[in-house]
Amino acid sequence: MTAQEKLIKKNSEGKIICVGLDTDKNKIPKHLMSSSNPILEFNKAIIESTSEFAAAYKINFAFYEREGSVGFNNISETIRFIPDDILIIADAKRGDISNTSQMYASAVYDYFRCDAVTINPYMGFDSVNPFLDRKDKINFILALTSNPGADDFEKLRLSDGSFLFQAVIEKVKRWNINQNCGIVFGATKTEELSENFKLFENLPVLFPGVGAQGGSLEEVVKVFRKNSRLNLLINSSRGIIYKDNSKEFAVSAKNEIIRLNRSVKSILDM
Amino acid sequence: MTAQEKLIKKNSEGKIICVGLDTDKNKIPKHLMSSSNPILEFNKAIIESTSEFAAAYKINFAFYEREGSVGFNNISETIRFIPDDILIIADAKRGDISNTSQMYASAVYDYFRCDAVTINPYMGFDSVNPFLDRKDKINFILALTSNPGADDFEKLRLSDGSFLFQAVIEKVKRWNINQNCGIVFGATKTEELSENFKLFENLPVLFPGVGAQGGSLEEVVKVFRKNSRLNLLINSSRGIIYKDNSKEFAVSAKNEIIRLNRSVKSILDM
Repeated sequence: MTAQEKLIKKNSEGKIICVGLDTDKNKIPKHLMSSSNPILEFNKAIIESTSEFAAAYKINFAFYEREGSVGFNNISETIRFIPDDILIIADAKRGDISNTSQMYASAVYDYFRCDAVTINPYMGFDSVNPFLDRKDKINFILALTSNPGADDFEKLRLSDGSFLFQAVIEKVKRWNINQNCGIVFGATKTEELSENFKLFENLPVLFPGVGAQGGSLEEVVKVFRKNSRLNLLINSSRGIIYKDNSKEFAVSAKNEIIRLNRSVKSILDM
Repeated sequence: MTAQEKLIKKNSEGKIICVGLDTDKNKIPKHLMSSSNPILEFNKAIIESTSEFAAAYKINFAFYEREGSVGFNNISETIRFIPDDILIIADAKRGDISNTSQMYASAVYDYFRCDAVTINPYMGFDSVNPFLDRKDKINFILALTSNPGADDFEKLRLSDGSFLFQAVIEKVKRWNINQNCGIVFGATKTEELSENFKLFENLPVLFPGVGAQGGSLEEVVKVFRKNSRLNLLINSSRGIIYKDNSKEFAVSAKNEIIRLNRSVKSILDM
């Protein structure tokens, strides 16, 4: 299945929650620490208990890289646990000059065999282009992020009156010849989403987070429903995987994603 | 030695060339392919023959990541060959929300023990800040890059008439409380460097490349000399490491960096 097919399938089942695997040794339940590979043990349990309900998994590369080659192995091993019909996003925020981005694309798509990636657009078209050659993938390009630093550059006004993040979205639409682009859009207020929604056209949208990063699941879904469109993923990392840090962590994660799915359904059924 | 001390020491010896280890299995001399680890064999030979003349080594993470955990091991092993008084730059173009950038900083500084990193500023202050806590490191933040895509966003005009890359430089100076910031500045024309030079104040500057990426070594050095300042690195990757593809590749790399150092010296002695 292509990445596009996986997203459509899950979205058509009303699944939009992306489970963020920001797995941190210091935050997982203590009883796992006696395992030979606590991180992997944790990810396996989370995936097994949530995969029936998840639209995607997002692997936050930073959390693995800090353990070097062991961490990189844990990414590969984690990916093996994820069922074939679920989108796997390499949340790596990559981007560099053309021949280097080629290598980054090869890392996430050939080596790790992910379905999607997050890309930082600062360096422009040729830094993104090697990813765009991969027709059956989805390349989520950072437009607006939900952190305070979004004010520093993303929300700077350009000479034509638009914000930088809006100029990024306009470019992404032009780059989307292979229908394999998406955007990351981290509205902190619902108005930001409503006001910019028309700009997105048919681009799939990855929302960085509900939970620890703020943002309301219900409000995002309402905007999409109002516009008769549902190609999106809303990520929750800490809100799901660290919901409970007892031996029952995997069950609690499952219950949490079920609860989120119900919230989504109640809005779609309205 | 801190990163700052390493840079000052090399620059004061007239050394400004950073050797870019963009090591690609498809480009290294064929005879190395019989080795059990051709990439590492190549890097070891290049480092041994150039370290007397180099100001820094820059490890382009993308080229290693594409081989997953093996590649990550090759980064660690390569770093062991680099003498202690030479700056090691993790060219990784990282940047993400605060708790994730914390992990990226930990990867390059705690795990790999690099002296410096390249950072993508798109997501703003809190995405850069975890790196800024590392006082004895140098954080090279992307301002202007030398690729064609620099026109897409970096050179967009803001509402105040300045370019985005200039707004980045202004912010970097404000973030530089620990004197551990630098910038990446890839002028494609000398005028761009001359016109913006005053903006840099005392920030160390990493120039992405002479050689394959264009840009003239001599002209860059002339601008610094005219301003009585010499805290910079000029990177050359392909121009040095792939200078010669025969069994004499390491000697040719050495001769090339010696030639570049002579060019620099001739301008400084003018």
